[in-house]
Amino acid sequence: MSPDTARPAETKPADLPVYADVLAAHERIRPHIHRTPILTSETFDRMTGAQLFFKCENFQKAGAFKARGASNAVFSLTDEQAARGVATHSSGNHGLSLSYAAGRRGIPCQVIMPRTAPEPKKAAVRGYGGTVVECEPSTSSREAVFAEVVARTGAEFVHPYNDPRVIAGQATCSKEMFEDLGDLDAIIAPIGGGGMVSGTCLSMSALSPRTQVYAAEPTAADDAYQSFRRGEIVAYDAPATIADGLKVPLKERTWHFVRTHVEDVLLADEEEIIAAMRLTWERMKIVMEPSCAVPLAAILRNPRLFAGKRVGVVITGGNVDLDRLPWLTP
Amino acid sequence: MSPDTARPAETKPADLPVYADVLAAHERIRPHIHRTPILTSETFDRMTGAQLFFKCENFQKAGAFKARGASNAVFSLTDEQAARGVATHSSGNHGLSLSYAAGRRGIPCQVIMPRTAPEPKKAAVRGYGGTVVECEPSTSSREAVFAEVVARTGAEFVHPYNDPRVIAGQATCSKEMFEDLGDLDAIIAPIGGGGMVSGTCLSMSALSPRTQVYAAEPTAADDAYQSFRRGEIVAYDAPATIADGLKVPLKERTWHFVRTHVEDVLLADEEEIIAAMRLTWERMKIVMEPSCAVPLAAILRNPRLFAGKRVGVVITGGNVDLDRLPWLTP
Repeated sequence: MSPDTARPAETKPADLPVYADVLAAHERIRPHIHRTPILTSETFDRMTGAQLFFKCENFQKAGAFKARGASNAVFSLTDEQAARGVATHSSGNHGLSLSYAAGRRGIPCQVIMPRTAPEPKKAAVRGYGGTVVECEPSTSSREAVFAEVVARTGAEFVHPYNDPRVIAGQATCSKEMFEDLGDLDAIIAPIGGGGMVSGTCLSMSALSPRTQVYAAEPTAADDAYQSFRRGEIVAYDAPATIADGLKVPLKERTWHFVRTHVEDVLLADEEEIIAAMRLTWERMKIVMEPSCAVPLAAILRNPRLFAGKRVGVVITGGNVDLDRLPWLTP
Repeated sequence: MSPDTARPAETKPADLPVYADVLAAHERIRPHIHRTPILTSETFDRMTGAQLFFKCENFQKAGAFKARGASNAVFSLTDEQAARGVATHSSGNHGLSLSYAAGRRGIPCQVIMPRTAPEPKKAAVRGYGGTVVECEPSTSSREAVFAEVVARTGAEFVHPYNDPRVIAGQATCSKEMFEDLGDLDAIIAPIGGGGMVSGTCLSMSALSPRTQVYAAEPTAADDAYQSFRRGEIVAYDAPATIADGLKVPLKERTWHFVRTHVEDVLLADEEEIIAAMRLTWERMKIVMEPSCAVPLAAILRNPRLFAGKRVGVVITGGNVDLDRLPWLTP
C-alpha cells in the first residue's frame, strides 16, 4: 500500500460473525427457507463473454434473501426472548421477512413503518402475522416510535443488516452456491446496507478465498463506492434511485467486510439498471426487483473484468409493483 | 356407456407415437433442452387445498415447451432430409422453437408468418437463424406460400402439434415430472392444438396410468371442451382470447389422445385467466404467458376436483410482450 492511500487502522467491530455461525445458521433455517435454484442463460453468457450463474433469491420465502437472515435471528432467540417478540424498522423486504420468520415461530413481530408507506407493503407484513406500527416519515419519528415499542414490549431488535445473526443468515446463500457450483471465480451482489455482500465475504473467506467478491451499486446512490474509495463510511440522506432496496448506508459490521474483503464496488446508471432488469425479465423469464439488475448492469459495463470467468450473480428479490414497471412509467 | 352417448368407433390415426418414441426423444433432445425446474408455492397450496407442482417450461430453450417437440423433429431427420431444411407456419412459439432447433443442427428453417405479425416475433425467429417468409394474413395465402416454399426447397414440414415426433417430444416434459415427483394424482396443462396434453397422456399411460390428465382451456376458445363433449373435433375460425397460444383447433392425432385419455377439459374466463396470471407473477416471481395461467384459473374454479391431491401444473411458456401486460391495458 503506498503512503498516499495508507489508511488508519480501524478497530474491529464487536460481535462479528465467523464461519461456524454460518454453518449453525444453515442448519437452523433449513426448514424455513427454500434452497433456491440457480439459472443460467446462453444469451447473457454470449453478451458478456462470461459464464454467469444466477442464484434466484427472488424465489425465496417472502420473496427475497432477507428471509435467511431474519429466520436465523428469530430462531436464535431463547424461548424467553422469543416470548417478547421481535421488532424492526423497515418498509422493505426485511420487515416482511422478519414477519414471515416470526410467524413461523409463532411469536409477535412489530414492524415500524412510515404511515406513507404503500398499503400493499403493510398488508404483506400483516399477511404473515406481523403488526405494523406507523410513524411519521422522518428519522426522528421513526426512532421515537421504535424506542417506545421496544420499551413497552421488550421485543428484540433485529437490524436489517448490521446484526451478526442476519449476516450469518445471508451468508448461507453463497454457501449454497459453493455447494452447487464449486469455487467460482467471482460472485457479484447488489449492495445497500451490505448484509448480502458481507455474508458472501464471510462464506467465501472460509470456502473459497480465491473467489473475488464484487458489490454492485447504483451511481445515483454510490455511498458504498465512495466509502470504499475514501476508506470510511459515507452515508447519504435520501438518494434517489429506481433500485429502492439499495438506498441505505453501510454500518460498522458490514463496512468491516466490505473494507477487508470486497474486490471492488462497481457502479451502474439508472438507464443501465432498467435495461438490465427488462432484459432479465425477457430472457430469463423471472420477476425481479430493480436492485437485482444492478449486478448484471455492472457486468455489462465492465466486460473485461468478467470475460472468461465463472461468475455467480445474486438475484436478491422479486417483490416488485407490477402496476409500476420502470420501462412503462414515464 | 349409455345408448344416448354412444359414439361411432373412430379409426385410430396412422403414425401415433408410442412410449418407446418418448424414450428415444428424450435421449435425442437432452443436449438441446433444459431440464426445467419444478417450483412450489405455499400460497397456492393454501388457496387451493391441493399440493401443486409447477413445471417451469417458461425457462425452456426458446422460452417454451415447444423446443422439446421441435428438437425431436429436427434431430430425427436423416442427413439427406436435414440438408433440405424444415418449414412450418407458426407466428408463435413453435416457429421460434423450430428455428432454434434447426439452428442447433445447422440446417435451414423457413417460417411462414403473416406480414402483419409483430416485428419482435419475426426478429426472434431470425435471431435463431431461421428465415421468415411473409404471407398475407389469410389461410389461403398462408397455404399457397407454404406450398410454394416446400416445393422450392424440399423442406420437411413440421406441424406445430399434429406430428408424432412433436407429440413424443412434448411428452418428455411429463416424463421429467414423473422422474422428479413420482406418480402424481393429476397433471393439468393448457390445451390449444393439444400437443402438450397429448404428450402428457402418452407418458402417463406408460408411467402412471392412475394419474388423471386434465386440459384447461379459455371459455372464449372452448373448441376442445366442445369437441370432448360432442365426441368429434369442433374448430372455430378466429376465437378471441388473451391466451393467444390456445386459439388453434385439435387435429386427428391430438384428438385421439384427448378422446381416449383426458379426464376432462376445464374452462376459465378471461378475467380469471388474467387474475391467475398476475397472481403467479406476484407470488411465484415468474414471467409467463397468459396461456400458462389457464390451468391455475381452472383449478381455482374447481377446487373440489383437486383438493387433497398432488397436482402437476405445466407452465408452458414465457414469451410475453412486457409492454402489453393484460392488467395494464384497458
